[in-house]
Amino acid sequence: MKQGVLLTVAYDGTDFCGWQSQPGLRTVQGELSRAAAAVLKVPQVQVRGVSRTDSGVHAECQRVALDGPDTMPVNAWVPALNPLLPNDIVVRKAEPVEAGFTPRHHAQWKRYRYLCWLHQDPNPLLRHVTWHVGQSMWPWSDGVRAPSMRIGAMEEAGRRLCGTHDFRSFCASDDGRDNTVRTLHAVVVTPHYRGMESMLAIEVTGTAFLKQMVRVIAGTLIAVGGGRMDLATVTQLRDRVLDRHRAGVTAPAKGLTLVHVEMDPLGPSAKRFDRS
Amino acid sequence: MKQGVLLTVAYDGTDFCGWQSQPGLRTVQGELSRAAAAVLKVPQVQVRGVSRTDSGVHAECQRVALDGPDTMPVNAWVPALNPLLPNDIVVRKAEPVEAGFTPRHHAQWKRYRYLCWLHQDPNPLLRHVTWHVGQSMWPWSDGVRAPSMRIGAMEEAGRRLCGTHDFRSFCASDDGRDNTVRTLHAVVVTPHYRGMESMLAIEVTGTAFLKQMVRVIAGTLIAVGGGRMDLATVTQLRDRVLDRHRAGVTAPAKGLTLVHVEMDPLGPSAKRFDRS
Repeated sequence: MKQGVLLTVAYDGTDFCGWQSQPGLRTVQGELSRAAAAVLKVPQVQVRGVSRTDSGVHAECQRVALDGPDTMPVNAWVPALNPLLPNDIVVRKAEPVEAGFTPRHHAQWKRYRYLCWLHQDPNPLLRHVTWHVGQSMWPWSDGVRAPSMRIGAMEEAGRRLCGTHDFRSFCASDDGRDNTVRTLHAVVVTPHYRGMESMLAIEVTGTAFLKQMVRVIAGTLIAVGGGRMDLATVTQLRDRVLDRHRAGVTAPAKGLTLVHVEMDPLGPSAKRFDRS
Repeated sequence: MKQGVLLTVAYDGTDFCGWQSQPGLRTVQGELSRAAAAVLKVPQVQVRGVSRTDSGVHAECQRVALDGPDTMPVNAWVPALNPLLPNDIVVRKAEPVEAGFTPRHHAQWKRYRYLCWLHQDPNPLLRHVTWHVGQSMWPWSDGVRAPSMRIGAMEEAGRRLCGTHDFRSFCASDDGRDNTVRTLHAVVVTPHYRGMESMLAIEVTGTAFLKQMVRVIAGTLIAVGGGRMDLATVTQLRDRVLDRHRAGVTAPAKGLTLVHVEMDPLGPSAKRFDRS
């Protein structure tokens, strides 16, 4: 009999060509699939992620399902996989689910965090996890001191994007999906994030996201914060002018981290297999 | 005429073989020297750092002096050097000093921060800047939840190391210096550092440090926090039993960052050259 397992996985996306397996490229899905196949001593294991993160995007809480034999206890997966994975991926948890479980059908909501480093100088220690928003993006008072941030305007822009809207202006122009209506629950702007004077976090929570949607929202909020876009334009792009080119730039992938995916309660069929 | 320049430099130490120039190896001093020589169009420029950080150690505030022609304005150094440096080094500031200025003769005090990740699982996004202190180093309640931290005992151990003592037990056994007496001003232990539940910071401030001294102090405090060393032993190692092997392990370099070097007031001879 098959047993489904739902893994919670963290990774540093810097050296991956994104989540999705691609021949000849180093991807998170590829590494997890390879490690699971080595555990099960089979040629190939299908692993199913909840979010296809882009190249350079990080995760604290990607959810990944795979099927194994029901003779293997679910709590054996974490200690079996981690030694076989490179040190930029860590499996944090394994939970029993039914065989064939597809995480993206069971995600209730997801939260992404986008980090900006608002300073004239880049920060070498944070260069892989932040977007360096320098002088050209922000009205500096004197080129050295902290910029005058229009945090209130950024928060208002975030509020205007919450709710159910057509986000065609706020996704990659090659997204390709016909239905670009999505629901955002919250956009939270936190200056001085984690006590760091020059760090700003934009956390976006919603049910589902279009391609590069959080990165375009981050680029748009930075344009608003820097006084290069007004709030009326944000409302227009949301309601009437569906035009990707008038929204902000697509903020670079490296500033983005998938921080939480809330799953459906896993249900009685999953609990039957609970061995942990 | 020569003009001295004092640079404030930040770097990610991960991919460097430490500060000090070594033939054929990538070092911070080597990269800065190469970039300065390219700016001045000369074969070689001597750069003098305040602290010879080990391989893997980071800096937010290394201080580096070099001499250039007095025809070059001091405030031209930052924009001249940064484009010639790799993106794991950034020059943050340039100040005028007298020619031949040797920063380590003018350091009043230095502060290092040591970061520990106290969790069963490693954190892939913080793996280059923290010491992963896992189950073997700490008494875990159930192997998953946050450990019971003896923070009070760690703080008391830190207090006992403050003041002027012979730190021979708390440095690399090959330190080689005859005088191992040093003065620590403060050892501050901060659990939940920057709002992260599993992060612990140990900040050590003093006038001067022996080889690997902060790393041995960090290893010792973690041993105390984990209940593997008592406070009486810390006092003994400080006062009577000068034995490196009885102190804690040398914590790995990657958890260490030089965060501040307070310099002497630069004096009237420096101010004469101020062009910034």
